[in-house]
Amino acid sequence: MQVLDVNLILLNEHDRVGADLFAVSDVRATHLLNVLRVTPGQTLRVGLLDGPLGVGVVESSTDERVTLHCTFDPDTPERPRVDLLLALPRPKVMRRLWAQLAALGVGQIVLTNAERVERNYFDTHVLEEARYRPLLIEGLQQARDTRLPRVSVHKQFRILIEDRLDALFPAGRRLVADPGAARSVPDAIAQTRPERVLLAVGPEGGWNAFELELLEAHGFMRVGLGPRALRVDTACTALIAIGHAAMGHGSG
Amino acid sequence: MQVLDVNLILLNEHDRVGADLFAVSDVRATHLLNVLRVTPGQTLRVGLLDGPLGVGVVESSTDERVTLHCTFDPDTPERPRVDLLLALPRPKVMRRLWAQLAALGVGQIVLTNAERVERNYFDTHVLEEARYRPLLIEGLQQARDTRLPRVSVHKQFRILIEDRLDALFPAGRRLVADPGAARSVPDAIAQTRPERVLLAVGPEGGWNAFELELLEAHGFMRVGLGPRALRVDTACTALIAIGHAAMGHGSG
Repeated sequence: MQVLDVNLILLNEHDRVGADLFAVSDVRATHLLNVLRVTPGQTLRVGLLDGPLGVGVVESSTDERVTLHCTFDPDTPERPRVDLLLALPRPKVMRRLWAQLAALGVGQIVLTNAERVERNYFDTHVLEEARYRPLLIEGLQQARDTRLPRVSVHKQFRILIEDRLDALFPAGRRLVADPGAARSVPDAIAQTRPERVLLAVGPEGGWNAFELELLEAHGFMRVGLGPRALRVDTACTALIAIGHAAMGHGSG
Repeated sequence: MQVLDVNLILLNEHDRVGADLFAVSDVRATHLLNVLRVTPGQTLRVGLLDGPLGVGVVESSTDERVTLHCTFDPDTPERPRVDLLLALPRPKVMRRLWAQLAALGVGQIVLTNAERVERNYFDTHVLEEARYRPLLIEGLQQARDTRLPRVSVHKQFRILIEDRLDALFPAGRRLVADPGAARSVPDAIAQTRPERVLLAVGPEGGWNAFELELLEAHGFMRVGLGPRALRVDTACTALIAIGHAAMGHGSG
């Protein structure tokens, strides 16, 4: 059985054309046909969006449509136990981040305003679900995961933290990255061994004093990433990776 | 004293025009004059390449030249204790990586060939020092560090590992990222509390069996990053960040 060198083809219920049969005819079909040049009988790694992983055998392929006979694992992968609260970065940076965050593994992405976020960042197309969903799926296919991160966008920081966050993140450890903090992420997580962790990353210029205090008043513990000043996208990747490692997901 | 919002201006001995006087007239001057619009008397964070951090007071500024009176700290920042051994990625990825690696903090970058590295990757301009040095400096200025990573490029993997590596990395813990490995980076580092750590990251398609065995025969321990398949650049950022956190650099 030859498993092609593609990380994962993500399917969803709309693709289902029979009990175990799925037909794809969009960019996935283009990739399968033109890049991987699949032929009937070949086997691919597949996954059902927010469902189990599995394998698909190519039943038929035409110029624009590939039909797969799929067998799925009994279990669905666990939702990543790391969540991200992020002050909305510049559209160019946010565009790059979607796939990266989904690949690294986050349960949810909570985007927020802050004093040092420019208002017009919220007008961008990269916050439209039709734009970011394909990017998230690209990241999942890269990482071989099926769990689509939940996304919410909040234009009022104070309302988010005071009124909404307990519903979005009811239980777990809340951490906020702060250049001045002496406590490290592994130390903060080792203390309580939480089920989930929410990592807050501020805007390019940092949270202001009011925002940091409000976060602390709502259970966020300050953690440092060392003396180096990192760009927002690098800081997100670093924090999420350290978060997963500290939560014990570092082993395969 | 107003410290301008620039992370760091890196100076070198060529810029020195007096005992504590430095004059810059290249892209740094353009940035100082056109972006930050500095005027005499203003104070900036400065650093001497591979030397100490400090502060610079603008003495004079013309259309294309800024002169700074600098006072430096007594000590030079420690060289980052994390090193990277990387199978040369695609030129586009490598171009993006230079500044990112310098910002994250690596003592040295050892680039190598491997079976799954395409030969023509070595012909690219991004491996010319004149191209990558400005990108490394950009990363240092971002992160507020002065320690330029050492770079070496090796077209023969076996000769590198068998004959060169002991001189490049004489002492410390050697780790190789391997998707199948159960041991995590923090576990591997906690065991021996090394002075330095060398992290090996393979090509997009992974090391082949011979390469992995040769690495293991030369003291590399396999470590996993969890079940997720990450892109090379994301894997580098994740590993270096976890490496720093595990080495105890996570605190400010």
